[in-house]
Amino acid sequence: MDSSITPTRFPGISLVQTTDFFYPLVDDPYVQGRITCANVLSDLYAMGVADCDNMLMLLGVARKMEPEVKDAVTTHFMRGFHDLAREAGTAVTGGQTVQSPWYMMGGVASAVVSSSEIIMPTHAVAGDVLVLTKPLGTQLAVNAHQWLSMQATHPEKYARVADFISPDEVEGAYETAILSMARLNQTGARLMHKYDAHAATDVTGFGILGHVRNLASNQEAEVSFMIHTLPVIKKMWQVDAKVSFRLSLGFSAETSGGLLIAMPRDKAKLFVQEIEDTDGWPAWIVGDVVEGNRTASLSDDLKVVDVDYRRLLDPE
Amino acid sequence: MDSSITPTRFPGISLVQTTDFFYPLVDDPYVQGRITCANVLSDLYAMGVADCDNMLMLLGVARKMEPEVKDAVTTHFMRGFHDLAREAGTAVTGGQTVQSPWYMMGGVASAVVSSSEIIMPTHAVAGDVLVLTKPLGTQLAVNAHQWLSMQATHPEKYARVADFISPDEVEGAYETAILSMARLNQTGARLMHKYDAHAATDVTGFGILGHVRNLASNQEAEVSFMIHTLPVIKKMWQVDAKVSFRLSLGFSAETSGGLLIAMPRDKAKLFVQEIEDTDGWPAWIVGDVVEGNRTASLSDDLKVVDVDYRRLLDPE
Repeated sequence: MDSSITPTRFPGISLVQTTDFFYPLVDDPYVQGRITCANVLSDLYAMGVADCDNMLMLLGVARKMEPEVKDAVTTHFMRGFHDLAREAGTAVTGGQTVQSPWYMMGGVASAVVSSSEIIMPTHAVAGDVLVLTKPLGTQLAVNAHQWLSMQATHPEKYARVADFISPDEVEGAYETAILSMARLNQTGARLMHKYDAHAATDVTGFGILGHVRNLASNQEAEVSFMIHTLPVIKKMWQVDAKVSFRLSLGFSAETSGGLLIAMPRDKAKLFVQEIEDTDGWPAWIVGDVVEGNRTASLSDDLKVVDVDYRRLLDPE
Repeated sequence: MDSSITPTRFPGISLVQTTDFFYPLVDDPYVQGRITCANVLSDLYAMGVADCDNMLMLLGVARKMEPEVKDAVTTHFMRGFHDLAREAGTAVTGGQTVQSPWYMMGGVASAVVSSSEIIMPTHAVAGDVLVLTKPLGTQLAVNAHQWLSMQATHPEKYARVADFISPDEVEGAYETAILSMARLNQTGARLMHKYDAHAATDVTGFGILGHVRNLASNQEAEVSFMIHTLPVIKKMWQVDAKVSFRLSLGFSAETSGGLLIAMPRDKAKLFVQEIEDTDGWPAWIVGDVVEGNRTASLSDDLKVVDVDYRRLLDPE
């Protein structure tokens, strides 16, 4: 499960809690603060818990940085984290900062909820479909962007992909990744209740297939999950074909990825429509729940959908 | 405050939560696990919250260690943490492990409580006394023990204190420190309710005077805190006189230190007696609450009490 659920001494009331801790990914500390906050909260949202009571922030501050730079980075990071926490309707009530040789960041999210607010990730049935609320390829986009910035010292890195992805396309992919990672899965969590979600997880370090496999293995019914569509940040499928992050196998790590939700087929279309109307970004039906022995796989006839948030922001 | 208090959506029910994160202190990873757990829980206990609902464990695992050593250290640390959590009547329901250049360890403790279970640290009145439930000098004892172990390579370290503390006395002080740091403040938290505690904190990184000053500054009444007695691990007062950790000023850092509690004078004697009967270790009346402007200080006529847990375990 993405979060721990602890019964409290009060009947029918549980404490739902999650913690996450990782390394910086993007250059802008404010954006990194937002991404970190979104990533921590995502584990609550995957359980259908849309309202977080409080957050703790954990920060390992790089020892060797110049003091003024350190102060600026820390301030901006904290502001990004706090801002997104506020947008999520919660507050950062504590935390801990330690000296560290490099930046590390994370947090804890807690919610005290009645049992009905929790959607256990175990009730998928054959006939359900799988919905995904964010595109894949965030790590590829972050890396491609790094290669571009290293052209002076390591031109061979970007050179590997330069014949099929332009610098502007790399920037576009990076922009899409940032917007996606810094976005809350909160609307998805709310709509999971409205549209009768049967099971959900969020897609992070193990890649979509890693998380779907884990979800499948925990189902009560004898079902398997089959992925037929991968929405991928534009051109990252081609980058992966050249410099493999194992995206085509379903295992490319994501940061602050989307919710992957099993729900009834007729509800899924309404869910996808409403999340797009509310958040302004698309979601996709990416797979089927079929009878099986609690495994998951990618279809042989995989469909890849290009995702370009920049074009959605500014359609010609 | 030592913990954050967040109202929940359920009337009269709050989430009390704390996090702590620090570096290893002792060689034995099992003992370090217990100390880490005791230290994290202590912030809840200081609020009178004796029953923790769940804990998360945070662990930064040293990158450079040999794999077998790393596994052994991690396993023993986790066992120590889990064992003490179980003794405290709670469970570790999650956590996060990251690669790190050195060990870092900590955790999160959470309790969902009714408001009456929380003792706000703000109600001391003139006439109260201050009680302390563990001795001071843990960091001095850990360091003296380190000097002893470095005699082959750095004989000058232990040489500074060798004329007044024997190796056996160093071992005794270290033993006392370990037993003290790995001990829960849970009995103290329970008895705070029974004996009408008005305000409390736990003594950690800022030293006793640092924490007492902070407590004094938060009082609703116009009071000040005066410390007249310092219970100190045996011989550590003398070690501090030679190699200053600022213990004599009240600022020597402690790890997993005692509760410092303001309570009525007549109740304090009963509290001290009952905590000793229950836990087997002494507590002390160490100061007075007087009228004042919310400051704290050490008395000019300070009394130092030697504390030797080894002798208490095995009196001749």
